[in-house]
Amino acid sequence: MTRIENAKKGIITEEVKTAALIEGVSAEKLSIDIAEGKSVIARNNIHNIKPLAIGKDLKIKVNANIGTSKDKSTIDEEIEKLKVLVKYGADAVMDLSTGGPIIEIRKRLIEESPIPLGTVPIYEAAVEGAARYGSIIKMTPDDMFNAVRAHAEGGVDFVTIHCGLTMRAVDRLKSQGRILDIVSRGGALMLEWMIYNNKENPFYEYYDRLLELAHQYDLTLSLGDAMRPGCLADATDRAQIEELSTLGELQARALDAGVQVIIEGPGHVPLNQVEMNMKLQKTLCNGAPFYILGPLVTDCGMGYDHISGAIGGAIAGAAGADFLCYVTPAEHIRLPDLDNVVDGLIASKIAGHAGDIARGLPSAIERDKKMARFRKNLDWEGQMSMSFNPDKVRAWRAAAPPSESDVCSMCSDLCAIKTVERALKKK
Amino acid sequence: MTRIENAKKGIITEEVKTAALIEGVSAEKLSIDIAEGKSVIARNNIHNIKPLAIGKDLKIKVNANIGTSKDKSTIDEEIEKLKVLVKYGADAVMDLSTGGPIIEIRKRLIEESPIPLGTVPIYEAAVEGAARYGSIIKMTPDDMFNAVRAHAEGGVDFVTIHCGLTMRAVDRLKSQGRILDIVSRGGALMLEWMIYNNKENPFYEYYDRLLELAHQYDLTLSLGDAMRPGCLADATDRAQIEELSTLGELQARALDAGVQVIIEGPGHVPLNQVEMNMKLQKTLCNGAPFYILGPLVTDCGMGYDHISGAIGGAIAGAAGADFLCYVTPAEHIRLPDLDNVVDGLIASKIAGHAGDIARGLPSAIERDKKMARFRKNLDWEGQMSMSFNPDKVRAWRAAAPPSESDVCSMCSDLCAIKTVERALKKK
Repeated sequence: MTRIENAKKGIITEEVKTAALIEGVSAEKLSIDIAEGKSVIARNNIHNIKPLAIGKDLKIKVNANIGTSKDKSTIDEEIEKLKVLVKYGADAVMDLSTGGPIIEIRKRLIEESPIPLGTVPIYEAAVEGAARYGSIIKMTPDDMFNAVRAHAEGGVDFVTIHCGLTMRAVDRLKSQGRILDIVSRGGALMLEWMIYNNKENPFYEYYDRLLELAHQYDLTLSLGDAMRPGCLADATDRAQIEELSTLGELQARALDAGVQVIIEGPGHVPLNQVEMNMKLQKTLCNGAPFYILGPLVTDCGMGYDHISGAIGGAIAGAAGADFLCYVTPAEHIRLPDLDNVVDGLIASKIAGHAGDIARGLPSAIERDKKMARFRKNLDWEGQMSMSFNPDKVRAWRAAAPPSESDVCSMCSDLCAIKTVERALKKK
Repeated sequence: MTRIENAKKGIITEEVKTAALIEGVSAEKLSIDIAEGKSVIARNNIHNIKPLAIGKDLKIKVNANIGTSKDKSTIDEEIEKLKVLVKYGADAVMDLSTGGPIIEIRKRLIEESPIPLGTVPIYEAAVEGAARYGSIIKMTPDDMFNAVRAHAEGGVDFVTIHCGLTMRAVDRLKSQGRILDIVSRGGALMLEWMIYNNKENPFYEYYDRLLELAHQYDLTLSLGDAMRPGCLADATDRAQIEELSTLGELQARALDAGVQVIIEGPGHVPLNQVEMNMKLQKTLCNGAPFYILGPLVTDCGMGYDHISGAIGGAIAGAAGADFLCYVTPAEHIRLPDLDNVVDGLIASKIAGHAGDIARGLPSAIERDKKMARFRKNLDWEGQMSMSFNPDKVRAWRAAAPPSESDVCSMCSDLCAIKTVERALKKK
């Protein structure tokens, strides 16, 4: 029985109890939300990790993408990225490798990862298809499903499948007239296959086959947004919403089949459309968890897209997004290096935390109160312990040390906190 | 005659015409907004710089704070900071020096700065008072006003004056019971003076004297928020709103006296209170330009407070804030170094730009469309020209070069843009 099937029967498993305890919610509540498709636990049955619940009324989670491309593929660096990401509190990672020994990389990452690991199996199908047939357009539907099966059998916890990119959505895309058409890599591969073969998307046409496969491993499906806007001008258009409606239909079918689903979302979205996008997803997709990439509130943030993404992610989180995919400062420029992934992760963690506070999550609010009290007491070790990167704070403080040990070099002897405490004690 | 006096009479000066041209608005509109106190041009009559308009329907502006403290005071580094800030598009800078030869630093910065320069004269009064009397609490009201006069005579364009910190506000602060009381450095100094001397804030009590002085140089007053919340738990409380109401009264008196005013704002504010804070300021302060510090949407962002500030700043900008004071990643840790000020500036510029887009500013939307078209065309030079830091983009791209010159190393041969273009051209 899958999690949804257990939950529908009112069976509360040890896994649900553990996940609920981590979240600080009741196991009964979490179980009901799983039964209704509003929360998921993203774990493959054969992957031995702590359960991670994502969804309704839960702490906003952060995913970090890693992986190689043809131009940069060293397995050791990806393992190192995984380690620092876990150290700084990533909730999940996705291996998006498309270069080098990608099967070996995936296996190593699954072995090493103490947190849920996601993939996009179509990448592997495409890379292997290109090698086998000389072109990705010659892949067969079986090749695609076999890639998903290989990932499920290998212990991957959640997979992105671009099953909402239908022929109808492609028509809508063409009639829309976008600047950037499709910027999703998996979506682009599917589109090319569909157009050259003049066939419907196999993951849509044979969706039941996908559900059967997912059911077997209690694999969580992350329904991909091939139509996510790649620039602000393309945001919230008919192509995007067409796909989102289809994803809502597919989510309902998955729920009936006992398969957990999360929905992927934009993308590049103007700030004033972010909240609306979150609410639209929740209504069109039956309250399913929303997994968003950014959203980036400007197209011009190259080198600082983690900041554009944190702005969008925080607003989205406050408005109901459940799962933030980080964006690194290297986005749109190159594959990220170690520093880039840390910066991207912490930017998204700040966004998620700000969203949690806005949503009233007690543990998030309490953390900031603790920080404020440490600050009031000029307790620097305490402040570091509440920060997202104590190593950095310690190093920076040491690099410009204050002359009095209880203040910092910004205000030095004119520390407002000390001045006010002295003044208010008087009288 | 001051700008407001000219504007009230319908006289449209060359300065207003130039500022309007820069903004892409009509001089008539800008002049009306100046007459009504809804926009300002922050320039001292004797400072020979391009006019910078701030306020209603104008591009959101970004200020960068620089300056020394007792623990770190090298004049050359501050000049260097000024230069990189100007290079990367700061609209204004504030010299907050409190250590070393602060008068000389201020003079050098005014000479070197091609953009408006602001200060907090009470810092100088306090540092000099401490030297002269052995304690800042022995400063006289004359010492305080003389500092303002010295800055005005020296060519400072706008000054922060904490004139809303009244005895009544201090009572409200005490009855409120904050975690962090006052975190404004200038506010803390004023509070200590008021409590030890048991006297009303001289800048409030003798506000007309301040107005006369400002009138003489057409000096813009930035009414400081001594009560800005220093942590989320203190946000939007009675102490803060008491001061804001007073600032609204003082703004009205300044407008009558022909003196330009901007209002300073929070601080640390939970994301879900940011928009409300912006709207409250606009109603309580008669639509005067709002100059905000952050706001930071979490207290825990040490080392990444430019990101917490960019999240708050973008939402605030979209909701009506006119002028963002940057926050650097070194905030709460130490005085910022050169890299920190650039990172802080660009984070705030992204926030302002995202706010401009949300507010429908045509030039902001057009910039992103240009970027999107350059991206579609795989035009890397074009993309860099639309970014906030082309040097960084170029260096990062060169450090992980793609094997095909038109893509990047993230997707390499699987570039979505190329794949889709190929697919959509078919048939």
